[in-house]
Amino acid sequence: MVYFDNISKIKYEGAASRNPYAFKFYNPHEKIGGKTMEEYLRFGVAYWHTFTMDGSDPFGAGTMVRPWDKFTGMDLAKARLEAAFELFEKLDVPFFCFHDVDIAPEGSNLRETNQNLDAIVSMMKDYMKDSKTKLLWNTANNFTHPRFIHGAASSNNADIFAYSAAKVKKGLEIGKELGADNYVFWGGREGYETLLNTDMKLEMDNLGRFFHMAVDYAKEIGFDAQFLIEPKPKEPTTHQYDFDVATGFAFLQNYGLQDKFKFNIEANHATLAGHTFEHELRYARVNNMLGSVDANQGDPLIGWDTDEFPTDLYATTLAMYEVIKNGGLGRGGLNFDAKVRRGSFEPDDLFHAHIAGMDSFAVGLKVAQKLVDDKVLDSILEDRYSSYNEGIGLDIVEGKTDFHKLEEHALGLTEIKHQSGRLEQIKATINQYLLRAYAGE
Amino acid sequence: MVYFDNISKIKYEGAASRNPYAFKFYNPHEKIGGKTMEEYLRFGVAYWHTFTMDGSDPFGAGTMVRPWDKFTGMDLAKARLEAAFELFEKLDVPFFCFHDVDIAPEGSNLRETNQNLDAIVSMMKDYMKDSKTKLLWNTANNFTHPRFIHGAASSNNADIFAYSAAKVKKGLEIGKELGADNYVFWGGREGYETLLNTDMKLEMDNLGRFFHMAVDYAKEIGFDAQFLIEPKPKEPTTHQYDFDVATGFAFLQNYGLQDKFKFNIEANHATLAGHTFEHELRYARVNNMLGSVDANQGDPLIGWDTDEFPTDLYATTLAMYEVIKNGGLGRGGLNFDAKVRRGSFEPDDLFHAHIAGMDSFAVGLKVAQKLVDDKVLDSILEDRYSSYNEGIGLDIVEGKTDFHKLEEHALGLTEIKHQSGRLEQIKATINQYLLRAYAGE
Amino acid sequence: MVYFDNISKIKYEGAASRNPYAFKFYNPHEKIGGKTMEEYLRFGVAYWHTFTMDGSDPFGAGTMVRPWDKFTGMDLAKARLEAAFELFEKLDVPFFCFHDVDIAPEGSNLRETNQNLDAIVSMMKDYMKDSKTKLLWNTANNFTHPRFIHGAASSNNADIFAYSAAKVKKGLEIGKELGADNYVFWGGREGYETLLNTDMKLEMDNLGRFFHMAVDYAKEIGFDAQFLIEPKPKEPTTHQYDFDVATGFAFLQNYGLQDKFKFNIEANHATLAGHTFEHELRYARVNNMLGSVDANQGDPLIGWDTDEFPTDLYATTLAMYEVIKNGGLGRGGLNFDAKVRRGSFEPDDLFHAHIAGMDSFAVGLKVAQKLVDDKVLDSILEDRYSSYNEGIGLDIVEGKTDFHKLEEHALGLTEIKHQSGRLEQIKATINQYLLRAYAGE
Amino acid sequence: MVYFDNISKIKYEGAASRNPYAFKFYNPHEKIGGKTMEEYLRFGVAYWHTFTMDGSDPFGAGTMVRPWDKFTGMDLAKARLEAAFELFEKLDVPFFCFHDVDIAPEGSNLRETNQNLDAIVSMMKDYMKDSKTKLLWNTANNFTHPRFIHGAASSNNADIFAYSAAKVKKGLEIGKELGADNYVFWGGREGYETLLNTDMKLEMDNLGRFFHMAVDYAKEIGFDAQFLIEPKPKEPTTHQYDFDVATGFAFLQNYGLQDKFKFNIEANHATLAGHTFEHELRYARVNNMLGSVDANQGDPLIGWDTDEFPTDLYATTLAMYEVIKNGGLGRGGLNFDAKVRRGSFEPDDLFHAHIAGMDSFAVGLKVAQKLVDDKVLDSILEDRYSSYNEGIGLDIVEGKTDFHKLEEHALGLTEIKHQSGRLEQIKATINQYLLRAYAGE
Repeated sequence: MVYFDNISKIKYEGAASRNPYAFKFYNPHEKIGGKTMEEYLRFGVAYWHTFTMDGSDPFGAGTMVRPWDKFTGMDLAKARLEAAFELFEKLDVPFFCFHDVDIAPEGSNLRETNQNLDAIVSMMKDYMKDSKTKLLWNTANNFTHPRFIHGAASSNNADIFAYSAAKVKKGLEIGKELGADNYVFWGGREGYETLLNTDMKLEMDNLGRFFHMAVDYAKEIGFDAQFLIEPKPKEPTTHQYDFDVATGFAFLQNYGLQDKFKFNIEANHATLAGHTFEHELRYARVNNMLGSVDANQGDPLIGWDTDEFPTDLYATTLAMYEVIKNGGLGRGGLNFDAKVRRGSFEPDDLFHAHIAGMDSFAVGLKVAQKLVDDKVLDSILEDRYSSYNEGIGLDIVEGKTDFHKLEEHALGLTEIKHQSGRLEQIKATINQYLLRAYAGE
Repeated sequence: MVYFDNISKIKYEGAASRNPYAFKFYNPHEKIGGKTMEEYLRFGVAYWHTFTMDGSDPFGAGTMVRPWDKFTGMDLAKARLEAAFELFEKLDVPFFCFHDVDIAPEGSNLRETNQNLDAIVSMMKDYMKDSKTKLLWNTANNFTHPRFIHGAASSNNADIFAYSAAKVKKGLEIGKELGADNYVFWGGREGYETLLNTDMKLEMDNLGRFFHMAVDYAKEIGFDAQFLIEPKPKEPTTHQYDFDVATGFAFLQNYGLQDKFKFNIEANHATLAGHTFEHELRYARVNNMLGSVDANQGDPLIGWDTDEFPTDLYATTLAMYEVIKNGGLGRGGLNFDAKVRRGSFEPDDLFHAHIAGMDSFAVGLKVAQKLVDDKVLDSILEDRYSSYNEGIGLDIVEGKTDFHKLEEHALGLTEIKHQSGRLEQIKATINQYLLRAYAGE
Repeated sequence: MVYFDNISKIKYEGAASRNPYAFKFYNPHEKIGGKTMEEYLRFGVAYWHTFTMDGSDPFGAGTMVRPWDKFTGMDLAKARLEAAFELFEKLDVPFFCFHDVDIAPEGSNLRETNQNLDAIVSMMKDYMKDSKTKLLWNTANNFTHPRFIHGAASSNNADIFAYSAAKVKKGLEIGKELGADNYVFWGGREGYETLLNTDMKLEMDNLGRFFHMAVDYAKEIGFDAQFLIEPKPKEPTTHQYDFDVATGFAFLQNYGLQDKFKFNIEANHATLAGHTFEHELRYARVNNMLGSVDANQGDPLIGWDTDEFPTDLYATTLAMYEVIKNGGLGRGGLNFDAKVRRGSFEPDDLFHAHIAGMDSFAVGLKVAQKLVDDKVLDSILEDRYSSYNEGIGLDIVEGKTDFHKLEEHALGLTEIKHQSGRLEQIKATINQYLLRAYAGE
Repeated sequence: MVYFDNISKIKYEGAASRNPYAFKFYNPHEKIGGKTMEEYLRFGVAYWHTFTMDGSDPFGAGTMVRPWDKFTGMDLAKARLEAAFELFEKLDVPFFCFHDVDIAPEGSNLRETNQNLDAIVSMMKDYMKDSKTKLLWNTANNFTHPRFIHGAASSNNADIFAYSAAKVKKGLEIGKELGADNYVFWGGREGYETLLNTDMKLEMDNLGRFFHMAVDYAKEIGFDAQFLIEPKPKEPTTHQYDFDVATGFAFLQNYGLQDKFKFNIEANHATLAGHTFEHELRYARVNNMLGSVDANQGDPLIGWDTDEFPTDLYATTLAMYEVIKNGGLGRGGLNFDAKVRRGSFEPDDLFHAHIAGMDSFAVGLKVAQKLVDDKVLDSILEDRYSSYNEGIGLDIVEGKTDFHKLEEHALGLTEIKHQSGRLEQIKATINQYLLRAYAGE
């Protein structure tokens, strides 16, 4: 069956094109910084937002018009799968991502659920044989079902800890079966509703134990995917244990896991935590913990996760700048953890939205690479921090000084020269680079 | 004396120019939508942020290097004036704005303060004779001095009400003397620190009385400037009476002042109140209350007024879209109520910052005009709201229906057709228009 | 059938009681300020949160254990009704509130929906004959169904305007039939997702027309309920037209509706708009627009509507202070627009939560009345604003002055005396009053 | 000289007292949980907010009336010192805290500054001989002076790194000289204004080096104070490196400093970072990193650091709960990093404010101890987490299980029992404990 019958394969037609079903900036084969755009951007489609999400919100019922929704149960799962690979091919995306519950319905017990998963995974593997689209990562949804009401690996109920482990075990097996590059942990319910009834220490210790067991099991079965923690400050819980990258980094170090995990950084989660997207990327990068990206955007005036398709070219430029400086994302990618607005309920909107997101990151990549090539920001840094290349500055970075020598130096200073940080000029420069993107200058 | 001796008159050199002291996009004489850029944009320099602000913040002392700061008292005031007109000329801006205390120091009593003002205003008038730069608006600073500790026109102390009136009276006289196009009221201390000790009713009534007296006095002296209220939600007070445009509009209607005032809308105040800049502009526009603009931007992750120079091209585009749809700003303008960052302390930064802001609005104007010319958003509206052009929809807007007829219509509906809001596609379109700005397409 | 079989009628047992199913502070018959607590507090149970809400959130399925959920369709509606009046009696509450869709399922078309409503309303009327519990207000849910995807009275689709009108028409008829004291309008979808595709002027004009028609129809059928607008800044829409009380007040004045409506003020909506609960109450009160209250609380660190049961005694005290100063709520009341947390899924939690809320407002009432009786805040105001009782101050409030006289007064001032606002001391006093509440001092 | 001549020593008079210069709840000698209140609460007065702060804000000049402000330079420093010890004695506080610049003016160079410090420290030591008030902690103000424009230990300028080191070196010497229990690092400028010109890696590495050198120097001179980092998310910088406790903990672990530092946790900084005060305390406590507390409160609707005196009894109760569970604060204390409001400008307000804060923490201590004594929250935890005391739960916490066994357990589960989290009931219980505080029940 064809689910998107009025849409052909999306191709690059250039910015002047008025075809709404064409890429204006994303040309997968265009070379940027020595790689093709496709190699650099490693886009992934999120199964949940694209094939499962129905458009409901806390005050409204579902609105999405999805041709496969005439089916139910396993038939629905199969129809979604078929639709998914049709969309992957038409969008020509290299990757996709899913939670277990996105691809197959839960059965009446865990065994049945696993059987449902096995059936779909087998079909999925067949589809993948004929497709260029690979699995960027999979994960276990340990937050939607009422059993996770008080958490999953951090639940107050040991049965739920076990249940969560069983689901992740299955997830690791599926990831191996499908050749996933990464495995993601997002702790939607790993946090607390109130401290008044929460044993934070036990819950975090249990989380640490859980991650160690996951690492051990992946090793046991020979699944060598990169393990990723995806931070989020709150929602659905009042406060999540993986608040942001720094909090996750503290946790990993505290439990001896820092060499086993990196981070999957989502733009909207960053802003909800009070950081820019690029802050989270930078912090992870300089600590060698940048693994993958959930590409979306939030609304800075709205206090919940809006998961919008990314269209802000400032954000995509600064994000790609960090990615380039990281030498790319390695086995990670740019997963569109983004959903069309509730009012964008037509199937076509799925294409408009992905085109918008892919084009926005393509522009971001081009602008960022140009900034790198022209050493725009690098030369600013070289100049600003030059005092650490000699004298007392060099002693500091080489660890050859102490408070005595530093005081002596300070007592001898007669004048201290500062230079302007030039933020306004830098921002104007970014604008010029952005506007010249189209012209290819 | 020359204060900015390494800077010549700023001219348009085009985007390809690498001269940091040139406009890349702002060409005052370029025609856009039938007017010159200069006529449309009506830029103003804010005296306080450019000539008075010292870079101090709640945790730090002043940092700004300003050649005129070697003077004090009236000599400082005169030096600032000289520097101001030098900068106006070099930037080639059509307008400036000031508070009374920006241009002349307070004396030991009100009479002396007024004498100081008279002396400077007289000099300023002379400068203006030889300059193209006019006064967009002036205002009274009724918030900095400790006497305004508990408010100005809304003070609990009747002496302060009187003092505030005297300062506004002088301000109106100065505005008339200098030919100001507008007079602005920003109620920095018109609000409350706590409701626990506040008589909100009396304070708002007094504010209403104050505005009526101001209107009367302006009429008396024949000062026909447009009167503007500048909303802000909070800071310095915990809660200000002019929280946002809607709150100000409620106030004006409640006190019979809605025909006497329009609004001066600041971008950063909008976002602090939980609105986009364009929301405040739109709300004012459709209620015929859009008077003038304080052009700056805030940091969406920061909870106080940062008053940054505007560089976000999305914001400038959507702002100029509203301005164009308003038929321009009339006697209003775009005042840069923006300050260089504390770290951008060199005199040159004043030029970099204004160039950044002027160029950003020039781009915004070009993109917005192109959106208007191509009916990009207009055609969306025409299509989306077409049901109000006939049948029951036309009856609704023409006031020819009631709940009986509407129920009858609803009972007869068999199917209701909706169409997608297409937000993702529209955003992608905005991006294409933005990127083509430089190419002039 | 008995739905809450382990719970008896909740009675006042005093603070020392350890019975979790007893009021500790709320004694309906206790006299406070000349009225009984029950007369003052006029508590209402919200049908939706108590009998319909299932505990789902954007990341999780429903969790609530509700004995009536074994039924479906109209049987479910009838079971809920039975459960409702059982809970009303056991809690001994004087009022309840509902949306149309809370009490009866929608049919396959509007006619069928209305028939369902008629059947339940008839049964409800019977229950009410044997019950003390009255209808505080009802309303139409014009936001959940997908038909309201782009708004209701502000929809871009005239059919939806008509459909919304039909639903409100039916709601007014139901309100009259059941003797409701008020009728509420909450514009859940009356706002916009993006300005890029929104005709704000047309939408607000249509809202104005809609309200006029509702007023006319109520008059026509002799339904003399108080009409209430419930402001909320955002959620579900990006921006709602009734952002806060001031915005609603601007709207009502602009469309000549200010004498036909008052406001239903929700605590959590206040804080989402950047105001304290007491600010919204005060602003409405001093403008004679305080109609009724949605009693709940938000989490100040969370950016969405949490609708928690109110337990913050500072908030309940300051809210009741405004209510007392308003001379009570008249025909309005305190509706618990509050839901048990997703983790509080047992039927008993409905009682714990209402007891918590009712006790908290009872404490608030007692403390507030004591503050009034002791003139704690009144005497502060009398002192602080005394300058307006004579001389220039009296001239100001009596409208006998102008800028000339005020300037003359200001020029004559040699010293201006201020006094401390004493916020810290006042807050300590509030704490003392709060802590003495239990002792009855 | 007597600076507060109308105020006598503040004593405990009980809640019924109407003497505004008396403690109503704080009785230093009352025994709570085996210690005296004074031993538990270890209050400190903040020199900066109480003796130096002038009431200025970003929109207003100073307002504070301070009798010692008639002096200047070193005379002012001496007068402040005299006033400080008068206030300490009248408030009967056990501790105080200061930054270097609070107690002595900077000289024309570092050597002179150090001489000024030496002179005052010598006098201070003399005052301390006759006083019970000890130094809780001191610190170096490395953020106010323009030299710290681009940071201190994280400056781009190596001279500033050296200068900062010299100031901390002096601070450590002063701490030793005066017998300080702690030494605090608050990185007011240790962060960035924009990532566009920031080398985050170098700056954080330098911070790490700086802390190691400080530790080494303290050891060298035999200063065995507890070292504390005080987190804050932003302000004055756009983003600070010590965003919150978790971020600080990540940093300390990453640089091998986790055994050398604990945290000084400020309530207002917690809420600015998106956490409750008790979250930060709990997170530090369970990681054995809770060192000391900056006792104040913020306004949840305001986005900057308001540093209000703490009066919210919920916050003081939950804070003291964590302190009790921590076995007290050890060498730490409760420093009032709080300032009177700008409108509370009279000297008396300093007493009202401290009384308000001390009384509020005294109530918090009493309520928290009662909650501990009655095992109110402990018994909830025991019950909620009981599944980890046996069977699979015990295996989990004892590390005796793996994903195989857990899956086996999960596959065997037929029903999973959950119990309500009972948040509403718990909150009602907290209210009852709070209200009974005064009655001593």
